[in-house]
Parts: sequence; C-alpha cells; structure tokens
Amino acid sequence: MPSRLGPTLTGGTPLRGLEEEDVLGHILPLFRSSPDLIVPPGDDAAVLATEERTIVTTDTVVLGRDWLDAWSSAADIGHKVVAQNLADVAAMGGRPTGVLITLVTDPMVSLEWVVDLARGIAEACDRADVAVLGGDLSSAPAGVVMISVTALGNLDGEPVLRSGARPGDRVAVCGSLGLAAAGLHLLTHDQAERHTTAVARQRRPSPPLGAGPQAAAAGASAMLDVSDGLLRDGGRIARASGVVLELDPVALAADVAEVAGAVGEETAWDCVLAGGEEHSLLATFPDDLPTGWRGIGSVRAPRPAEAPGVLVEGRTARQTGWDHFGGGGAGTDAVGDDPRQG
Amino acid sequence: MPSRLGPTLTGGTPLRGLEEEDVLGHILPLFRSSPDLIVPPGDDAAVLATEERTIVTTDTVVLGRDWLDAWSSAADIGHKVVAQNLADVAAMGGRPTGVLITLVTDPMVSLEWVVDLARGIAEACDRADVAVLGGDLSSAPAGVVMISVTALGNLDGEPVLRSGARPGDRVAVCGSLGLAAAGLHLLTHDQAERHTTAVARQRRPSPPLGAGPQAAAAGASAMLDVSDGLLRDGGRIARASGVVLELDPVALAADVAEVAGAVGEETAWDCVLAGGEEHSLLATFPDDLPTGWRGIGSVRAPRPAEAPGVLVEGRTARQTGWDHFGGGGAGTDAVGDDPRQG
Repeated sequence: MPSRLGPTLTGGTPLRGLEEEDVLGHILPLFRSSPDLIVPPGDDAAVLATEERTIVTTDTVVLGRDWLDAWSSAADIGHKVVAQNLADVAAMGGRPTGVLITLVTDPMVSLEWVVDLARGIAEACDRADVAVLGGDLSSAPAGVVMISVTALGNLDGEPVLRSGARPGDRVAVCGSLGLAAAGLHLLTHDQAERHTTAVARQRRPSPPLGAGPQAAAAGASAMLDVSDGLLRDGGRIARASGVVLELDPVALAADVAEVAGAVGEETAWDCVLAGGEEHSLLATFPDDLPTGWRGIGSVRAPRPAEAPGVLVEGRTARQTGWDHFGGGGAGTDAVGDDPRQG
Repeated sequence: MPSRLGPTLTGGTPLRGLEEEDVLGHILPLFRSSPDLIVPPGDDAAVLATEERTIVTTDTVVLGRDWLDAWSSAADIGHKVVAQNLADVAAMGGRPTGVLITLVTDPMVSLEWVVDLARGIAEACDRADVAVLGGDLSSAPAGVVMISVTALGNLDGEPVLRSGARPGDRVAVCGSLGLAAAGLHLLTHDQAERHTTAVARQRRPSPPLGAGPQAAAAGASAMLDVSDGLLRDGGRIARASGVVLELDPVALAADVAEVAGAVGEETAWDCVLAGGEEHSLLATFPDDLPTGWRGIGSVRAPRPAEAPGVLVEGRTARQTGWDHFGGGGAGTDAVGDDPRQG
C-alpha cells in the first residue's frame, strides 16, 4: 500500500490546519434531507423514521487496497462505497433509507478531494432517495485514507436470506455480470479506452436497488448481491441453503460476449464467473421470474457425498475471489476443472 | 502517531495469514443476541426490530490519536468505543438497541488482541442489553489500527436536542465530571497509582445510559453527553439554544475535590471544566431535576451584545478541548479569564 498520497488527493488546501467544523461546513450542504429524516446530523445523533424492521449493514474501503488514487476520483469512491452498501440492503429485500459515513484520513488530503468525495456520496444517495444520517471525520497516519459506510433500510415483510434456496428453484440475476471486473482488468493493463462502460461500472457500480424489494415481493427464496463474484457468492447461497446451483453457460454467453472483445475470451469468462464489485442481484425463485430478471440456472439437491456448491455445465468451477487477510486474487478454495475447457 | 505496533498489539498469532472467516469464528460467538435482533449478522445485512423513531450515530477511534497501546488493553478500547456511542444515543433521550463495529487494522496485529477487543465490545454491549448488528474487518497499512462504531437506538417520544434550553431552566449533570481527564493526566505523568478510579474511568467510561430516557421523560429541554469537556459541550447547548449557561463553581467543588489530591487543585479545575471523554450527561430542565441528577447552574437569556456561551461565576471560562484537524489541546476559542482566579 502507498505511504505517499498521489496528486489527486493532495491538490488544493490540505485539511491540516482547518477546523473540523469548517470542513463540515463545506460538506453538509451537499447532502439532501429526506422525508424519513426527523432530526438531521449535527446533534448527538440523528433520528430516522422507521417501521417495524430495519436492515443495517456496514462496509469499509481503504486507499491502496480497495481503490487506487490514479484510477478513481474522489466522487467515484464516494459513489461506490455508498452503492455497495445500498446493494446489501436491497439484497435483503429492503428499501434503503439512510447512510452514515466515516472518513479517516491523512490530514495532507485536500479539502477539495473531500468535497468531491462528498459530491459522489450525495449523488449515490440522491439516486436512491437516501439521507445522510451522520458521520465522523478523523485524522489518520500519513498515507492512510479510509471510508466506512453504514446503511439502513426499511423492510416490508420477511427478509430474503441466503439460506432459502430449494431444489427446483430457478437461479436468476438482475443486472450485469463481469463488467466491473473487466473494467478493473483494463485499468490494470492501462487499456481503459477499450471498454469505457466496463471501466465506468468498475468506478461506479449501479446496483438495481428496486429489484431487491421486487424480488422479495415475487417470492424470491434466497438473494444476495454479487460483490465477490458469481461463483463465490453463488457458493454462499449453496452452502447456506444446502443445495447445488447448476449454472448454464449458455445463459452467460451474452455477458461474456459483452466484454470478450475488450479483454479476450478467457479473461471474459473469468470476469463473468469470478469478477467482484458488480453488485447486481443474484436470487433463487420457486416461481416465475419478475420483470428484469433473467434465468441463469437451477437449484437441485446435492447427490450422495456431494457437497453444496456451484456447478457450471455440470462441473465444479474455479472459485476465485478476494479475501482481506488471506491475500488478494485467487481464493484458497480454488479447485476443480475450468468449465471453459469442458 | 506510531508507525510500529507495541507488544500488546502483536503478541500472539498475527492476523496475516488467517482467513477472515477464521477470525470471525473467534469473535462472533462472544456477541450475545437480543430480543430486538431478527436476523443476526452473517447474511448481506442484519435485521433489527424497530419502532417509529430510530436514533443513529457513529464514532471512530484511531490508535496513537485516541488511545495508546501502552495505556489501554484491547478490551478497554472495545468497551470505550461502544460506551461513547451508546452515550450519544442516551443523550438524545433514547434506549440503545444495537451497534455495528468496523476494525481496520495492520495485519501484524494479533488474533489475541482482536479477540480481547471483541470481549470488551461484548461486555459494553451486554451491560446495555445491546446487540452487535454487524461489522467489517479490513486490513490497513503498517501501524494503523482504527475502530469505528455505529450505534442505533429506539426513541419513545420526542428527541432531546441541544437547542431547547430556555431562560429559567436549571443546568444539571448525571454522572461524574473530570475523572476521565484526571486519569489521562495521571497516565501521561506515569502516576496511574495516584487515583485508580480516575484511570479506570479514562479507560472505560461509564455513561449513565438510563438517565437519557429518564431525563427525556422528566421534560429535559436540552441534553448532550460530556465528550469534549463541560465548557465546550455546555457551549454547544448555549449556542444552539441562544442562551447563556451560568455554572456555579460551588456545585462543582466536590468534583474538583475528588481528583485534586491526585492531580493538584489547578489541574483538577481543568479536568472538571474542560476534561473530555467523561460521557456523563449534561441537560437543562425547566422543572424539578429527576433522581440522580444534580444542579450545577442555570440558564438565562444573553444580555444586549452578549454572545451565547458558558459562564463560571459570571466570567467567561477558558474553553479548551480537542479538535481533530486543528491540533490537540487548547482549542482556538480559548479566551477570557480563568474563573479560578476570579
């Protein structure tokens, strides 16, 4: 990880020397209120109108590990960290209502960067009609910038867990697959111009938030958002539910084709099967799929001595993904045949 | 700030090389559920039973800035960061129901330290009957350890804001004043043995959580928790309400006496008037004080050309406190006479 900040982060007035209230004075006016917000941030705490069940989740991004200064603007990062938390709320079947944002940063980061970050946060919140409920602004050692988001949402009815998939259910996706990973691949290889949509998706995920409550209403039996890759996240549903997900590569061919021209056929399959940060929704349905969802496979019971898991064209697919302490890249559960050679 | 971790943090098995799920396997069993917790952490998000109004707040502590390895065990820090967030919920008049915890850490920190941290978190949660609703565990550059907590609470009735103090109200406190600051002073001067209660309060604040809803029910017109010092926090009520708080030094004499033997008379006044991290509750009441609260002054309207603020024995008191970016120690609003010389 970098111990020095790049020029994107430091161009302008450094936070060092500014009062916290001055910084907040530049940021807070960017955040819109919402009908759910009874007491806005600024007192000891905010007060949010809630119903019987509230969904809560949190996620953190760290400079140098989750994003690189050279690849993402502050607004991109603000947008992304909010969007991925809202996706978790949607993946339970809920409607996001609010977020809390914590920025812990090297005080050599500029006020301008922080204001741009806040703009990205505000944009992602406005798109989802979500209020900023609070936050914290703290200094960190040199080179450190991290942003932590907690999201809240309202849940009508029952939550859609990972554990409810049953044999006979259909496996379906709402949203794209592999675009964000292809974008990351292109940024890594300094080829961003080869697929600007993929690069944009990497920088600013666009989770189909409305599809979460929609799927819940349509009787989805299990759901999550694709944050660590179709195989790894599908494996989570499979293990939690004690089932096997059989994915149909034909149903994924269009996703592969979408990025194959830019990254090559082999990498395209990697992106679609194992690419993270897409934040599309993956669910299982006992009945017909709701509008906007597309079938990519089916659920069956494990055969004798077969472990729950994900198969592609009947074979165990490579499991790749990201583990924060075990090291990036290939996961430790990388086993089995490559379905593309099947 | 330190770029190397002390032995307290690194003694044992480093996180580096462990899978995130292995680490969580040691931590999650320490956390108790609660009747409010409908879906525990482990899915995309947790689901909490809520009522019409939910209080939310967040706060972060960073190694080297908010605590020193040599002064606080991991369990102390876990306890403290939870307690200070729960105090914010209580200070709105609410009952805390849940917390989310994010740990971003140098992977050379040991599993044992993290488990001890989780024990302190669990103890503070259990004392308040609060559930852990989720969290995040991420790696950070060398030397960085930070813990972020978001707390939720249920609010019956109206929130108690900072802006409701009115001329004629009484100013009151529930809990101690100056103990945590005296403890910090003793730790700084390597004299912890001179007042072990004060040092313990510095390490583990003990906010009177039940006094928050109690004060709300008794008609408190304004309230907050004393996190940055009586003068600075009192000033927040004064400015938000457009009033002057007149504090009576006689009413504070017992607080001063409590620590004067250990830190000296002058420092004791500093601790009581300006000491942070106490997390006692400061409120204003138009009517009689509820049980457990003690009067320390009164509220009046500003005189012509007088700004809202806090007076001690009729004089502007020194305003000290902590500002994250402006540098620690004396704040920039340090003006006026020293009331101890008045």
